[in-house]
Amino acid sequence: MSANDPAFMARALELARKGVYSTHPNPRVGCVIVADGQIVGEGWHARAGEPHAEVHALRQAGARARGATAYVTLEPCSHHGRTPPCADALVAAGVARVVAAMQDPNPQVAGRGLLRLAQAGIAVHSGVLEEEARALNVGFLKRMEHGLPFVRVKLAMSLDGRTAMASGESQWITGPQARAAVQRLRARASVVLTGADTVLADDARLTVRPDELGLNAELTALAMTRPPQRLLVDGRLRVPLDAAFFRAGPALVATCAAAAARDRYHDDGHELLAVPAANGHVDLHKLLLALAARGANEVLVEAGPRLAGAFARLGLVDEYQIFVAPKLLGSSARPLLDLPLARMAEARALTIVDIRAVGDDWRIVALPAR
Amino acid sequence: MSANDPAFMARALELARKGVYSTHPNPRVGCVIVADGQIVGEGWHARAGEPHAEVHALRQAGARARGATAYVTLEPCSHHGRTPPCADALVAAGVARVVAAMQDPNPQVAGRGLLRLAQAGIAVHSGVLEEEARALNVGFLKRMEHGLPFVRVKLAMSLDGRTAMASGESQWITGPQARAAVQRLRARASVVLTGADTVLADDARLTVRPDELGLNAELTALAMTRPPQRLLVDGRLRVPLDAAFFRAGPALVATCAAAAARDRYHDDGHELLAVPAANGHVDLHKLLLALAARGANEVLVEAGPRLAGAFARLGLVDEYQIFVAPKLLGSSARPLLDLPLARMAEARALTIVDIRAVGDDWRIVALPAR
Repeated sequence: MSANDPAFMARALELARKGVYSTHPNPRVGCVIVADGQIVGEGWHARAGEPHAEVHALRQAGARARGATAYVTLEPCSHHGRTPPCADALVAAGVARVVAAMQDPNPQVAGRGLLRLAQAGIAVHSGVLEEEARALNVGFLKRMEHGLPFVRVKLAMSLDGRTAMASGESQWITGPQARAAVQRLRARASVVLTGADTVLADDARLTVRPDELGLNAELTALAMTRPPQRLLVDGRLRVPLDAAFFRAGPALVATCAAAAARDRYHDDGHELLAVPAANGHVDLHKLLLALAARGANEVLVEAGPRLAGAFARLGLVDEYQIFVAPKLLGSSARPLLDLPLARMAEARALTIVDIRAVGDDWRIVALPAR
Repeated sequence: MSANDPAFMARALELARKGVYSTHPNPRVGCVIVADGQIVGEGWHARAGEPHAEVHALRQAGARARGATAYVTLEPCSHHGRTPPCADALVAAGVARVVAAMQDPNPQVAGRGLLRLAQAGIAVHSGVLEEEARALNVGFLKRMEHGLPFVRVKLAMSLDGRTAMASGESQWITGPQARAAVQRLRARASVVLTGADTVLADDARLTVRPDELGLNAELTALAMTRPPQRLLVDGRLRVPLDAAFFRAGPALVATCAAAAARDRYHDDGHELLAVPAANGHVDLHKLLLALAARGANEVLVEAGPRLAGAFARLGLVDEYQIFVAPKLLGSSARPLLDLPLARMAEARALTIVDIRAVGDDWRIVALPAR
């Protein structure tokens, strides 16, 4: 077995993934303590405010942690947050070696946790399965490194790239498995963002529904304790407070309309977020900055062609998740994105990174080509 | 080894596939002769007018065919065509048993070849890997069973379902691997069908180009000896005879315009096919009947949204091959198919049977849901 056995890190990543629906705004982190080639402790971070992965793993390992190796999917923290620094806990437990998948993504603190460990005489190593570790915390990393959340745009279209009939007639065009996949995309997001068009036209609620997630009881329960914030972009406050969207629970409303309405929304349990306007609409870049400042790691955009098209036009999309129903809606039907381009040279290049069947439908994951 | 060992039939199918680019109007057929559990002869049909698969295999087996088992992917013929009946050849060679993947698809003659063998004292069996055998000759079967060719529509679109800019500006939006795949779709077809719009707008030639096929030398040479007939649907004879399409070689033109032009086309080496009109356009169903009558097994439609859309509207499409480029062309760009539908209930249901990467692009194979 090699000194930095990636199999142990793979197990730590597997543990970390259990937190995918519940750690935000914190990162998903897993930890495995290995003594004499055997796993003696495992842990993962479940929810902000609760113990970090290392603490759980050390507790399970008990005295066997002394002289052991700790595999962690993220550099152990060295600062006092809501919980004491994990680096200190590892030192106190007497581990001999710490292997981290990656350093802390915050450039201001990267390396400090490892340094603290090294100064305590612990052998440290970083960069094992780093790519996998980064993929797991794509939103946390984007926020730490760029001050913006990771923006995932979910689209559902027919095979000929249409979303609804010209009349506006629409319905779920994808099947139950695709809808469950969308539920899981919502559940993992910090914020689910939609627009007034969608809420007015479809009476959309954008909630996470436990019975539609298709997850086991443990993950479903975790997901439901940390549901995403539902955010309505409503520049002119067109959506009435008795819409299903507002009746479904507390919501956040981003608007550039006069703040005079704030109390009315507040009285109903909602929050109004004032965002400057750009060309008469909510400035989406500024909105994203504000969301990151509030701790949003992943934002799921579930909106109509106008709002989703605006994110695309502004280059604010990190990932498209396109659900394709095996249907032809025809050439009069509504487009996928309101994205008027005149010349071939303006075409937006993407990289398709995954296509797979989801029931009778297919899911395409595409990234803007950098 | 079972009596009807599918491994030998699988080998016969593998041999048959070598004829995919060259047997039309004949079916692709392979044959394996097995004596004492060993293959002693192999053959496949290469070109109409040349020996059938069984003859090649029997020649290779020689005297070892006596008492052997012959595996053939299609019931041996019992009639005198351009070559003598294969059933007779199998009898003359003294084979003890014949296993066929499927019966002759022509309901008028199905079973006669096997009957002839049985009457000669040969044990016969049919229905081994039948599904695979049918898939290999999907066009030949459609023609025999329905008097129509198998219609495969090739489309190339952006991820948002568009084919060209609103201005008409277009270019190959897919990469070289996708273009090679299209070349192979052309090469396997009996007829490559296009419309006046495409030829006028893109100066399309619809030829098979040996260096772009991506096949080995043997298959490339075979493909080039039996190139598909290039068919232009030009109801009003709008495409001038000096277009690149006509300069690229002899072509067939389907039209409902006056036959007075026949000589002019004929003098240039082309053939005019008079087809009745339907709603002022070439009646596509009648055209397909005429093509089947001329021996067309597979027709590849490579046309613009209007003509491809007409095939879709009329329910004449057997298979869509959709090449998807990882680009967004935007909502002003031209649609995939000119297929105006007003209500959700009119949406055409498809079944996606395959999606796979082709270079940086993706290919979706979809069948109309029956």
